[in-house]
Amino acid sequence: MANSASIVFHKIAIVAQTHASEARISLLQLIDLLNKLQRSIVCETETASLIADKQLPTVEYAELGKDVDLVIAIGGDGTMLRAAKVAAQYGTPVIGINRGRLGFLTDIRPSDINTQLAAVLNGEYEIGERSFLQTQIASKQPSKSCDKALNDVVLSPGRTPHMLEFEIYVDDEFVCSHRADGLIVATPTGSTAYALSGGGPILHPVIDALVILPMFSHTLSSRPIVVPGKSEIKIILSPNNATDSQLSCDGGDIILVPPGGTIEIKKDAQTIRFIHPRDYNYYAALRGKLQWGKQLTPDGEPK
Amino acid sequence: MANSASIVFHKIAIVAQTHASEARISLLQLIDLLNKLQRSIVCETETASLIADKQLPTVEYAELGKDVDLVIAIGGDGTMLRAAKVAAQYGTPVIGINRGRLGFLTDIRPSDINTQLAAVLNGEYEIGERSFLQTQIASKQPSKSCDKALNDVVLSPGRTPHMLEFEIYVDDEFVCSHRADGLIVATPTGSTAYALSGGGPILHPVIDALVILPMFSHTLSSRPIVVPGKSEIKIILSPNNATDSQLSCDGGDIILVPPGGTIEIKKDAQTIRFIHPRDYNYYAALRGKLQWGKQLTPDGEPK
Amino acid sequence: MANSASIVFHKIAIVAQTHASEARISLLQLIDLLNKLQRSIVCETETASLIADKQLPTVEYAELGKDVDLVIAIGGDGTMLRAAKVAAQYGTPVIGINRGRLGFLTDIRPSDINTQLAAVLNGEYEIGERSFLQTQIASKQPSKSCDKALNDVVLSPGRTPHMLEFEIYVDDEFVCSHRADGLIVATPTGSTAYALSGGGPILHPVIDALVILPMFSHTLSSRPIVVPGKSEIKIILSPNNATDSQLSCDGGDIILVPPGGTIEIKKDAQTIRFIHPRDYNYYAALRGKLQWGKQLTPDGEPK
Amino acid sequence: MANSASIVFHKIAIVAQTHASEARISLLQLIDLLNKLQRSIVCETETASLIADKQLPTVEYAELGKDVDLVIAIGGDGTMLRAAKVAAQYGTPVIGINRGRLGFLTDIRPSDINTQLAAVLNGEYEIGERSFLQTQIASKQPSKSCDKALNDVVLSPGRTPHMLEFEIYVDDEFVCSHRADGLIVATPTGSTAYALSGGGPILHPVIDALVILPMFSHTLSSRPIVVPGKSEIKIILSPNNATDSQLSCDGGDIILVPPGGTIEIKKDAQTIRFIHPRDYNYYAALRGKLQWGKQLTPDGEPK
Repeated sequence: MANSASIVFHKIAIVAQTHASEARISLLQLIDLLNKLQRSIVCETETASLIADKQLPTVEYAELGKDVDLVIAIGGDGTMLRAAKVAAQYGTPVIGINRGRLGFLTDIRPSDINTQLAAVLNGEYEIGERSFLQTQIASKQPSKSCDKALNDVVLSPGRTPHMLEFEIYVDDEFVCSHRADGLIVATPTGSTAYALSGGGPILHPVIDALVILPMFSHTLSSRPIVVPGKSEIKIILSPNNATDSQLSCDGGDIILVPPGGTIEIKKDAQTIRFIHPRDYNYYAALRGKLQWGKQLTPDGEPK
Repeated sequence: MANSASIVFHKIAIVAQTHASEARISLLQLIDLLNKLQRSIVCETETASLIADKQLPTVEYAELGKDVDLVIAIGGDGTMLRAAKVAAQYGTPVIGINRGRLGFLTDIRPSDINTQLAAVLNGEYEIGERSFLQTQIASKQPSKSCDKALNDVVLSPGRTPHMLEFEIYVDDEFVCSHRADGLIVATPTGSTAYALSGGGPILHPVIDALVILPMFSHTLSSRPIVVPGKSEIKIILSPNNATDSQLSCDGGDIILVPPGGTIEIKKDAQTIRFIHPRDYNYYAALRGKLQWGKQLTPDGEPK
Repeated sequence: MANSASIVFHKIAIVAQTHASEARISLLQLIDLLNKLQRSIVCETETASLIADKQLPTVEYAELGKDVDLVIAIGGDGTMLRAAKVAAQYGTPVIGINRGRLGFLTDIRPSDINTQLAAVLNGEYEIGERSFLQTQIASKQPSKSCDKALNDVVLSPGRTPHMLEFEIYVDDEFVCSHRADGLIVATPTGSTAYALSGGGPILHPVIDALVILPMFSHTLSSRPIVVPGKSEIKIILSPNNATDSQLSCDGGDIILVPPGGTIEIKKDAQTIRFIHPRDYNYYAALRGKLQWGKQLTPDGEPK
Repeated sequence: MANSASIVFHKIAIVAQTHASEARISLLQLIDLLNKLQRSIVCETETASLIADKQLPTVEYAELGKDVDLVIAIGGDGTMLRAAKVAAQYGTPVIGINRGRLGFLTDIRPSDINTQLAAVLNGEYEIGERSFLQTQIASKQPSKSCDKALNDVVLSPGRTPHMLEFEIYVDDEFVCSHRADGLIVATPTGSTAYALSGGGPILHPVIDALVILPMFSHTLSSRPIVVPGKSEIKIILSPNNATDSQLSCDGGDIILVPPGGTIEIKKDAQTIRFIHPRDYNYYAALRGKLQWGKQLTPDGEPK
């Protein structure tokens, strides 16, 4: 799923989830490793406050990834998503140490820092490129951009439980209208996040496609649609909706969209490179996290 | 979803579903149109037996598409699937006149032969390229190839209702094992066929991907997986299965695979070009056939 | 599904959806019919304002069903739900004239007022009894009751898209915990309402059971559970939830429940009788509203 | 879910899965326990052949449950299903020791024989009553009965993958027609068996209802329907089906039903009593077997 590569990472930026005490343990261990490997370290300001070392150079969150070879994020998928968005601006790749629950995006287990992550830092890694969604709200008021999304853009009603009415267009071709709880547009990366709970399919990350997934639609024959990655998706809210609708990118801040408003979603030109350990296996990650059936023994029993 | 083109079709091969009387009506109308437009016609042998015209040149089914510019198939998706497989060998494109039920693949309604199909014949059309699956059974006995599949390859138990046990590998990476009723591997074309009844996602035809869909799996966290088009999918049957399993390509002839057998499925190098009328809209076709919500009026009511 | 009965309805209360002009047409037609049949009429106050007749006796909404034999509701399922809750207090049955969209609860089509509804008024009808849910919020603050619900009680996050964490207990036995968008508890009546969009099963109205349906759960092996009608369902919100959760009965007013709060849901002792026309067929209603397959002809084709 | 009881079981019949070596271990342990508790034992003939004790009285399978107080089945759900069908004829209750995979029906883990099962034998138990389905094939040929089913009756095509066309009636009211892979009719007991893999809801065993679940229906708005326990379900196969269809009760022997044939399914008058250990908890069983979310700690984390 990824290209092999062998460039050694010298300058490393670190960011950690600051309200999880376990993240601090991995942070200290990571700094030890980097010092031992004689790498140059810069630590995100808030992250730096977790540790006593006043000598450690710091960097503002907004400049995470600037002038470094790699960003290492310690935490859950949320920590990784936020870091990736900033790092992408500087073209810097990202790798994650898992201190969250499932951790689809954070490959390195805390116990593997000194082995697997050390190997990565020495050039033993794979690269996977991931796309962002960009979202534009083109209603009567001046058009407004939202944050980029690595996982998904979610449209939901302003008041729950409540129903939204909207039309979907792809490349200016009308697809269908829905009376539904909302709509998810997800990248392949996001197909194993919120969209998965909603019954969406799993898309391997190298597939150039997006998933359109209505939520609790009144149209019982509604199904998830996988559209080409270059698609321009347009959602037109019915003027009949009683309240403003809510738009949220990667579960972040909510933007209100008035009845009759139009939302345009497409892949962003900018991408982010995810660094994986050499033996990374997407399907093994899936299987582990979703508790799928293991390999069978010669007797046909799960190992 | 398709490339525009303007080459006029001069030499036309025709094939029709021979056990549907409605197909004969469209056949006669089509021949009238082709004569009027002064096109050269060749008629598949069994199809020719539907009509009285003894002068009409005929062609064996196995040579459908040889030395012609276009194959026109009259019938349902089954008629289209079979014609496409033969025509693909000669690199000849195919278009369908719908005399079946849903007709996802047959664009032209019988009532539009003289208008829409006439325009197509004069160069007013779009081209969509579709892929086939090739399947190899690599068990202890000498390896055996199956028919190519435009829609899907379906693995099912030899005796129903019965359970199969098997492992799935993609590009030699183990994905998961299943105790299930079976497995569907579908192309984007097939995503609106059998796989759709089984809860699979809809894949736009230009997406380079395949769907792997377990049927009635005991693993309740199982979900459809969309893998890259270049994936080599391998299914290894557990030696524990009590009976031979059945493999079927596009719902055609059944091939038995013994317990412990291995099935390899990947995209075929050969493709087929589907000819669509100029105003063809994939999403409109979906919406019509799946009875999805129509466009809303300014009042927010469905039109 | 219902008991036959032959008591003639003499005193009728009427309520109509007041912001739909079509409802007014049916209202006038209904009053004509009732006058012709020499029935005593009382009209809900706001409904009365739709028509010019100043002689018509009126009744406050809160007393709808008091001292009458039957309440007739004109509108959609929402109109019917609200009327049923009030009428149940007086033990008065309800019938609906459909001026909404699907109208699972409103049996009489506007065109059938003079025939089907006239027959009902003369004693040609069936009776179906439906149950309500009662909901109690038993948190730290003094316990609070919610409105009764005929369809469902829905728990949702205070902010969307956001996740809730909660435990489910039935009869004080722990069932499972969820990290999910929310939870639906539905009656058989509600199984064809919101719960149906969420993937819930359809429960015939005479079944004494409730449906527990997690919404977008992170537990991919989660399934709808149908529990006995006498079950006491308890939901305990995790103290970890970041915000208050929202509870809504039949899509009505929202009640906030704090993190750590407890919600108790069970069937109410009070029921409501729905009056159906003599030839009422629950399955025909389902089939029509869900566009299911029609009866086959001797040739096996849908009629 | 069950009634408490305190009658001591004196005379015990034993049956074990004969092709699983682990079953034999539990069998020996069980006989030891019964001897120690001075109970009278009778062993099913084939089961008896697993052990050396020639003194042990034996009983033919067909008389399992005759003249005894309890049947103990050692194996998986299949062993339990078969034993229950025979024991029901003698009104004898059944309990299971789990030597299968999931074991929804076999409550006792092998490690709990000397504790939990001993307590049961001494009168510490709960009783749960389960219903059977009876199935009648009423086609042109003389009407034919099938085996009773504790889990489900499954209709499937004679050839796979293939499609069936049929109509469903409940209490002689037409419900809908389907073009589908087949149909499952399940009891609440069967709702956690095959029907669960097919997307059916889970029904608590005391609910008096049946589930009708179309398999892979072309009708995308199709949903599982839960009908009253007293329902008479009739399936009429379309005369258009190309081959005989297959009917199977609890996954047992297949009965062929010709095109145009009629199948009648309803609850049997005879029931079977399942014996559960005193602390049996249906929801705990579900949660364990389906890997649902555990109870939360005061911190909101799963225990």
